[in-house]
Amino acid sequence: MARFIKKVSAKAGLPPGTLVHIGERMAEKVAVTLIDYDSDHIEEREIIDVNECLPFKDTSTISWINVAGLHDTELVESLGSCFGLHPLHLEDILNTGGRPKIEDYDDYILVVLKMLYLTDDSDEIAAEHLSLVIGKNYVISFQEEYGDVFDRVRKLIRNGKGRIKREGADYLAYLLIDAVVDNYFNVMETVGEAIEDMEEVVMGRPGRETIHVIHKLKSDLIFLRKSIHPLREVISDLERGESDLIRQTTEVHFRDVYDHVIQVMDTLDTYRDILSNMMDAYLSSLSNRMNEIVKVLTIFSTIFIPLTFLAGVYGMNFRYLPELRWHWAYPVFWLVSIALAGMMLAVFKKKKWL
Amino acid sequence: MARFIKKVSAKAGLPPGTLVHIGERMAEKVAVTLIDYDSDHIEEREIIDVNECLPFKDTSTISWINVAGLHDTELVESLGSCFGLHPLHLEDILNTGGRPKIEDYDDYILVVLKMLYLTDDSDEIAAEHLSLVIGKNYVISFQEEYGDVFDRVRKLIRNGKGRIKREGADYLAYLLIDAVVDNYFNVMETVGEAIEDMEEVVMGRPGRETIHVIHKLKSDLIFLRKSIHPLREVISDLERGESDLIRQTTEVHFRDVYDHVIQVMDTLDTYRDILSNMMDAYLSSLSNRMNEIVKVLTIFSTIFIPLTFLAGVYGMNFRYLPELRWHWAYPVFWLVSIALAGMMLAVFKKKKWL
Amino acid sequence: MARFIKKVSAKAGLPPGTLVHIGERMAEKVAVTLIDYDSDHIEEREIIDVNECLPFKDTSTISWINVAGLHDTELVESLGSCFGLHPLHLEDILNTGGRPKIEDYDDYILVVLKMLYLTDDSDEIAAEHLSLVIGKNYVISFQEEYGDVFDRVRKLIRNGKGRIKREGADYLAYLLIDAVVDNYFNVMETVGEAIEDMEEVVMGRPGRETIHVIHKLKSDLIFLRKSIHPLREVISDLERGESDLIRQTTEVHFRDVYDHVIQVMDTLDTYRDILSNMMDAYLSSLSNRMNEIVKVLTIFSTIFIPLTFLAGVYGMNFRYLPELRWHWAYPVFWLVSIALAGMMLAVFKKKKWL
Amino acid sequence: MARFIKKVSAKAGLPPGTLVHIGERMAEKVAVTLIDYDSDHIEEREIIDVNECLPFKDTSTISWINVAGLHDTELVESLGSCFGLHPLHLEDILNTGGRPKIEDYDDYILVVLKMLYLTDDSDEIAAEHLSLVIGKNYVISFQEEYGDVFDRVRKLIRNGKGRIKREGADYLAYLLIDAVVDNYFNVMETVGEAIEDMEEVVMGRPGRETIHVIHKLKSDLIFLRKSIHPLREVISDLERGESDLIRQTTEVHFRDVYDHVIQVMDTLDTYRDILSNMMDAYLSSLSNRMNEIVKVLTIFSTIFIPLTFLAGVYGMNFRYLPELRWHWAYPVFWLVSIALAGMMLAVFKKKKWL
Amino acid sequence: MARFIKKVSAKAGLPPGTLVHIGERMAEKVAVTLIDYDSDHIEEREIIDVNECLPFKDTSTISWINVAGLHDTELVESLGSCFGLHPLHLEDILNTGGRPKIEDYDDYILVVLKMLYLTDDSDEIAAEHLSLVIGKNYVISFQEEYGDVFDRVRKLIRNGKGRIKREGADYLAYLLIDAVVDNYFNVMETVGEAIEDMEEVVMGRPGRETIHVIHKLKSDLIFLRKSIHPLREVISDLERGESDLIRQTTEVHFRDVYDHVIQVMDTLDTYRDILSNMMDAYLSSLSNRMNEIVKVLTIFSTIFIPLTFLAGVYGMNFRYLPELRWHWAYPVFWLVSIALAGMMLAVFKKKKWL
Repeated sequence: MARFIKKVSAKAGLPPGTLVHIGERMAEKVAVTLIDYDSDHIEEREIIDVNECLPFKDTSTISWINVAGLHDTELVESLGSCFGLHPLHLEDILNTGGRPKIEDYDDYILVVLKMLYLTDDSDEIAAEHLSLVIGKNYVISFQEEYGDVFDRVRKLIRNGKGRIKREGADYLAYLLIDAVVDNYFNVMETVGEAIEDMEEVVMGRPGRETIHVIHKLKSDLIFLRKSIHPLREVISDLERGESDLIRQTTEVHFRDVYDHVIQVMDTLDTYRDILSNMMDAYLSSLSNRMNEIVKVLTIFSTIFIPLTFLAGVYGMNFRYLPELRWHWAYPVFWLVSIALAGMMLAVFKKKKWL
Repeated sequence: MARFIKKVSAKAGLPPGTLVHIGERMAEKVAVTLIDYDSDHIEEREIIDVNECLPFKDTSTISWINVAGLHDTELVESLGSCFGLHPLHLEDILNTGGRPKIEDYDDYILVVLKMLYLTDDSDEIAAEHLSLVIGKNYVISFQEEYGDVFDRVRKLIRNGKGRIKREGADYLAYLLIDAVVDNYFNVMETVGEAIEDMEEVVMGRPGRETIHVIHKLKSDLIFLRKSIHPLREVISDLERGESDLIRQTTEVHFRDVYDHVIQVMDTLDTYRDILSNMMDAYLSSLSNRMNEIVKVLTIFSTIFIPLTFLAGVYGMNFRYLPELRWHWAYPVFWLVSIALAGMMLAVFKKKKWL
Repeated sequence: MARFIKKVSAKAGLPPGTLVHIGERMAEKVAVTLIDYDSDHIEEREIIDVNECLPFKDTSTISWINVAGLHDTELVESLGSCFGLHPLHLEDILNTGGRPKIEDYDDYILVVLKMLYLTDDSDEIAAEHLSLVIGKNYVISFQEEYGDVFDRVRKLIRNGKGRIKREGADYLAYLLIDAVVDNYFNVMETVGEAIEDMEEVVMGRPGRETIHVIHKLKSDLIFLRKSIHPLREVISDLERGESDLIRQTTEVHFRDVYDHVIQVMDTLDTYRDILSNMMDAYLSSLSNRMNEIVKVLTIFSTIFIPLTFLAGVYGMNFRYLPELRWHWAYPVFWLVSIALAGMMLAVFKKKKWL
Repeated sequence: MARFIKKVSAKAGLPPGTLVHIGERMAEKVAVTLIDYDSDHIEEREIIDVNECLPFKDTSTISWINVAGLHDTELVESLGSCFGLHPLHLEDILNTGGRPKIEDYDDYILVVLKMLYLTDDSDEIAAEHLSLVIGKNYVISFQEEYGDVFDRVRKLIRNGKGRIKREGADYLAYLLIDAVVDNYFNVMETVGEAIEDMEEVVMGRPGRETIHVIHKLKSDLIFLRKSIHPLREVISDLERGESDLIRQTTEVHFRDVYDHVIQVMDTLDTYRDILSNMMDAYLSSLSNRMNEIVKVLTIFSTIFIPLTFLAGVYGMNFRYLPELRWHWAYPVFWLVSIALAGMMLAVFKKKKWL
Repeated sequence: MARFIKKVSAKAGLPPGTLVHIGERMAEKVAVTLIDYDSDHIEEREIIDVNECLPFKDTSTISWINVAGLHDTELVESLGSCFGLHPLHLEDILNTGGRPKIEDYDDYILVVLKMLYLTDDSDEIAAEHLSLVIGKNYVISFQEEYGDVFDRVRKLIRNGKGRIKREGADYLAYLLIDAVVDNYFNVMETVGEAIEDMEEVVMGRPGRETIHVIHKLKSDLIFLRKSIHPLREVISDLERGESDLIRQTTEVHFRDVYDHVIQVMDTLDTYRDILSNMMDAYLSSLSNRMNEIVKVLTIFSTIFIPLTFLAGVYGMNFRYLPELRWHWAYPVFWLVSIALAGMMLAVFKKKKWL
């Protein structure tokens, strides 16, 4: 559950615009890397002092600054003032509890989204807060931790493969967002397989722990929905190309990403329906089991309780109890008992209880 | 459940635009067939080399190229470059996990939809990924497997019946889509009959396996919804005729297809309501059954437990137990027992338990 | 359930535009009647040959052609070619499984709707497929069976009462649609009374068959919704008067019909809420009953089981069992038994089980 | 339930425009009263003959004609023809089963709404059909019964207090509608208190009748929703001031009424959520109770059934049953019994059943 | 529950525009404070006579008048007439049962919203009615009680920190609203932690009181939704900047607040989903528990009831009962008993009941 709540108390009572990192510190040290490229050259280096970034802001080459780790608010602030970012947007970058959003400001676009991954024990789905600042010739990406989702983009740049070197910052941003969204499918696949497994369990022999697994899966879906749903509108805004920063040739690519997001949402809805269907099956299987148990109890009781009474009767110590002295009383008792039991069984058979 | 998830792992880490066939290989060999016709002539042949298609692109005759089998990505790629298809659209054609969509690009329209059919054992509903590229004078259809849904269109062309020979590529596309949508009704009919059968079972004597069948039917509906729902918007786009490739005279036909899709969706909603209604009836029938079973147990127990106690009392071996010596004790015991049982039965009768 | 599915298999594999009657043949023979009138004259006759209709198409008098019975596709086809109806619209007229729709074509409007009635045993709600073709000076109505819903319109024309003789074909169409919609209220009233009856049963002493009746009522509502809901949009289109064929003075009348449809839909929603509320009450009444039954069982068992044990103890045949020889053992046994039972009853009283 | 259905059979088969009063006759005699005022004078009188109203139609003074009782259709008809009301609107006025609506006609606005009140035994919520015809200088109100909701408006006019005397007919209409809507809050308060009472019962000791009360409350909410919901759109139309009859200064007042309606709807939604929450609590309280009852049964049974068996064993009459002759057998029996019972209790304690 | 209903009876029958304080009197005495500032000076004082405010209305300095306590209707009225507030708006200010709304009037904007806080025992969420009147150079805030949510704004003004001194009344209003909305996050955090706690309980060992806590949490969510939901539209209106009183530079700030409100609503939805998921888990845990209990009962009964019968048989006093005299009868009895019990246990093991 902890993933649903981010402590905001740290910020209580502070005026708006005060930069506070909300969330857990996930990286030891903040790592800032820069990749600067155009069709001819490529330069990669680690940034120690933020001011090194400044010259790259207005060059015609494409610069990608990646910040991994958000707890160093001063670093973020000075980067922000370098690139003229609005203080409220810096707050959005630092607030890891915030939801995906898009802000089309003066000369940059801020895109906030969630990177999803499976924790190492591969059992829990977690989300990482990711912000992209898309400028004319630069993209700044802020992430909580240095991860490998962006590796395929780095490779593309290094290899000079694909159209990337001929395209602008908007195409770079597209590649980054596409990498994040593509990763959603992997997460969805894992969830889907878990649901598939459960389906067989529920249709077979559900046990007590079944409900816990269904509960967890539902919980995962709620978390995924919360993380992904607002992205739809964000990408839709990018795709409609209302900003000058997104060129028309890139719009078709964002439209493709948009389709992927829609497909993820669709799949989430389908999964939710499947789980709810499964829940119904589980509950009625509980009811069915209950019926079966009580049926066994009832069959045994209704057969033996009258017979026990009868045995009790002839166990009575009345002085004048004529049957006790009859010679065939005992065999007759057994005959009667068996007949009664048989009748009961016949009735149950007719009621389809057996 | 497997039909709900398509393995996307194959594509993990690849840059966008890389063509990968996602899904199972359903045809042994990719079969490419061409039908070229106008009001005067008709030519049908199997294509071995994709370049044979090239001359048909710009002729005034209508050409229909049908590709059955999607695993030969190179073939799709070269066909794509022949006809100038966008790489992202080729990805859509190959990704059998994608959802129905429409893309109105430079000089062609891409329509992606799902063909539905019953598997041979007629028990499972499956979907096939179908893509249509509608150009000025040509239609390219990509399907996973060579099927017979399009046979009626082939016949129409061969017989020269109907308006088809006087009409353009848009009308051909309409006929293909119409054939697919008409087939939905057959699938719906099968589902409808299964629901009808279940209704009788649930209202009659539902058993343990009933929930499994309801579960399967609900699962089918979820699958159908997922496959058909997005088509609504797709056809609506075609029908509004925003593209030059769809002529006004064809719009009324697409409107008809649109109505059919709406009707299928309507029927799906109705089926879902019927199933949910059925589920309620099933669950309360379980409760009713439970009540009945427990009632039998209670009636037997409440009648015989006190009597057994009484019999137990007179089975006690106390030296001073006056009743034991009474002469009429035994008949009185029976009288009392029968009276008690009768009273209980009267009470149950009054409670309407009997 | 059969009313929810219409066999479409008959049409499988046929090209679009092929006329096939989908549905059951409800009338023995197709009856075509004509009423032609203006403010001065009125002419009524039965039509044998469809070509007799032709001259009435372009006269300034209002002609109402009523076709009862849909299985004679040739007749419909020739009537269609007389009046220039689009083949797809003829299909709509013949497909009794189709949903209500409106088509505003070149020089006529096609309105498809459902006439609702109670079957003769007054237990089942059924729907009849009705299509109206509204032209400049004529209205053609296609129904499955000759019924008496339109009698009030026929009377109005014959009596020359009302504004009908001064008005045009649009007003005639309004009268026909209004007659159909007014009839919905009668059907709704019947359903409403059945719901009212059930409400008393559920609040009183619901039995096993209660769920069957609720199920049937819900099923009826689903059917009504399916039949009426799309009409809303149809009438809204007519009322907004986008076609030249509907004059402004008639729009206020269609607005009135629209209000009636909305009211029927509103009532359907209310009924659905009432039924779902009833279902909740029914289910918790089942639970309550169960509690009551089990309570009786528990009270009897917990009182007598310990006592039976005690009786069993003093029925043991141990040689050294001191109590057996005590003089007051038996009365003490009874005292203890009664005291135990009394204590149990007191506990149950405190728990409010009694 | 009767309040949900109005008999419409009376109207079956009649042509549109035929005036029939649908609903119960609530007033003995139709009472028509007139208040005519401007800033200088005020005149109040009872109207015997409808034609007395005629002169007031076109005077510059504001005239308010109130008709209490709807069964005299002739009176309504002649009033209608006096003021030029459309026959369909007269039908709306007389059909007490109709829903709230607004009709902006040539030179008047018809507003239909529902007045809500508690029946005298204060247990049932009922609705009265109210129609307002708002003209340039007059307002005609039709109600089913003479009530006291409008008294505060009458007082305002008589006292000459407030802005009323300087304002027009639209302000008078606002005051009447405001009086009706304000009264909704009183009804809501009563319902709210009943819900509050139930909440305590459900959280405390719900009994068998609890579900009946919840059912009734839900039923009330359905009725309130049905009566009030359509009003939202009605007032919204008035507030947007599309008619010339509503002056701009009055719009801000209608906006206030609109806010009140929204608030009532909001509260209805909140109540519905609270009731559904309560229902969940009630159902799980039933389950909990069931568990508790069965737990008691199980504890008693599992403790005493084995012991009874043991006692039965030593009650057997086998000739060779060695234990019977042991000297300490009886005390050992008790020790074993108590030990077994203690063990069972310990197990139950561990399972938290105790 | 009391928080859901505000007594409106006090107002019954009064004409619109009559000022009545609806709600509880929360402050002993009404406290009116004034802060007047521009970039150069700052003046703070307590207001005794409302007329002292008048001169501040039209000065170019920014004046913030805070009214804590709403029961002094005369004070509110005279303040209203000082600043030209519409009587209906004064009603909105005094009606603490009203919902959040925005009114864009002649020369001021009225914003009504709810301040949320935890009651001192920190167990209950309560709401305070807050109204802001935003004029050209002044903001008047009406609250029910003097609280500390605005303290951070007061500090900002006093310290001259931030942009506040250079900005206008719209920025002051933004700060006040932002303080209120930021506080929502604290309330949400408390609720979230309570939900987290419950999740562990439900997944662990839910008891009888569990449902009470879930019920309370749901109730809290309903209350939060009711209080916050309408605010969304209110802030959206402010952010779209349709009023001249909100300058463009402030719009980006309101957009930020809007995002916060959306996030709160999102979180509420997520919480609701989590609770509903939890409820499902709780109910099926009840069913599971029931199954377990009944299973124990059934196992014990089905094992011992037949054995007890057998013991009863050999406790019978028939004279001719051959087994009684067999030498090995007793050990055989035990063997049979143990064998029967073993068989039953084996069956239960196979059924997975053990």
